[in-house]
Amino acid sequence: MKVGFIGFGEVSYNLSKIILSKGIGVMTSLEGRSDKTRDLAGSLDIDILDSFEDVAREADVLISANSPSSALAVAVKYGSLTDGIFLDLNNISPQTAYEIANYLSDNHFIDAAIMGTVKSNELNLFFSGKRANEFKEFLKKYSSNNPQTKVNITVVGDKIGAASALKVLRSSYTKGVSALLIETFEIAEKFGLSDDLWDVLVLTEGDKFLKSSKSRIENSYKSSKRKYEEMEQLIGFLESYDFEDDEDIMLKATRDKFASLKNRK
Amino acid sequence: MKVGFIGFGEVSYNLSKIILSKGIGVMTSLEGRSDKTRDLAGSLDIDILDSFEDVAREADVLISANSPSSALAVAVKYGSLTDGIFLDLNNISPQTAYEIANYLSDNHFIDAAIMGTVKSNELNLFFSGKRANEFKEFLKKYSSNNPQTKVNITVVGDKIGAASALKVLRSSYTKGVSALLIETFEIAEKFGLSDDLWDVLVLTEGDKFLKSSKSRIENSYKSSKRKYEEMEQLIGFLESYDFEDDEDIMLKATRDKFASLKNRK
Repeated sequence: MKVGFIGFGEVSYNLSKIILSKGIGVMTSLEGRSDKTRDLAGSLDIDILDSFEDVAREADVLISANSPSSALAVAVKYGSLTDGIFLDLNNISPQTAYEIANYLSDNHFIDAAIMGTVKSNELNLFFSGKRANEFKEFLKKYSSNNPQTKVNITVVGDKIGAASALKVLRSSYTKGVSALLIETFEIAEKFGLSDDLWDVLVLTEGDKFLKSSKSRIENSYKSSKRKYEEMEQLIGFLESYDFEDDEDIMLKATRDKFASLKNRK
Repeated sequence: MKVGFIGFGEVSYNLSKIILSKGIGVMTSLEGRSDKTRDLAGSLDIDILDSFEDVAREADVLISANSPSSALAVAVKYGSLTDGIFLDLNNISPQTAYEIANYLSDNHFIDAAIMGTVKSNELNLFFSGKRANEFKEFLKKYSSNNPQTKVNITVVGDKIGAASALKVLRSSYTKGVSALLIETFEIAEKFGLSDDLWDVLVLTEGDKFLKSSKSRIENSYKSSKRKYEEMEQLIGFLESYDFEDDEDIMLKATRDKFASLKNRK
């Protein structure tokens, strides 16, 4: 089996290491790509083809790992060239997954999401789509190679969009927590109580709370624009479902909080 | 030393067990109290006086543990009768602490908060007020009696209101998390993804997440009215500080979420 990557950033790099460790071949192209991508791809024992068209044609599994905004274009251009499975790993929204499904048959397309980080000892993948179960079973054949890297695959269902929806819901929850942390600690700071508040919250929220929360806060100040856009997209998606008015109060506040953070810069 | 309780509910009961285990005497009165209070107080080896006036006059430390709404009246009526320390444990807001301070000198009054639950093996107390440090040192004399029950005392500062503010900020953060959980899982449920979402969140939020979050959700549906009122009071308090408009976006959304939950009933 050969896995092809369209796009080769950090996620593809870390994923390739796991795939290679399972004895599976990896290929990509450097067509029009940055020096950083060249360095990342060049540091691994993978095949470099002349073009992404070639990668798409030769891959048994084609992975798109670029950015949410380029996901649809990549799927349309390269997804149709592969006879194998087309796996989207772009943190796309469910509506983008539906749009891709308009172009690619679900005999090929699997909506996929990595939950958590790509660690060398564990990888948590979520799939949805008609062939998700079959593909999961297929990948099991490789699981015993290098058992140090545990790959957990969960099939969310046979509908395209379910894996993306799950990822988006998870991420809107954690964004909401980040927005709450930022707001609460900015207020505490004005009362000179932020150190005490950390102490008090650690009492009930556990030891890991301090480190993970401080990293969430830091990360949220840095990527407030992206988080704002992702919340805006999720809210737009949910509005098409005709929910009650009070069903996205916290989501909208999270969006507005990130909007205000990005405007501070 | 003798500790007197004005009010004898669950918190007073659990606290009394710890105080008694340290070899300190406890007293209260059953004047006008319910059968439940009689049972709780009767099950412990404590002195029952005829009236709360008597309790207030005889106590070296007088603890008010009733409800936030009766805190001020209790402080005014009984706090002035004690020569000792008057400790408010009513989860009051900082503004109520300020109001009490208008009636009681800070030679007597200590603003206090229990963080987390009153467990038999650990108690976390936070004090603020002019005599908070001195009182903490005084209590240390008893700490070696029954060391199985660890009593951790933190002095938040010498200003009345700091301990209450800390408690209120902690509790507004956890209320916000509850509101987020409720909203996110109600949406997930509509997509048939709530079980998967629990699985996914446990991956990154840790093992304790599932149990503590489900209990937060259950508790929030049950006490949405009280949580709404507490959020409303906090927002009113902060507004007197002339903050920026975007500084309480999440707080207001949390209030609105609980308002909408209470109206569903």
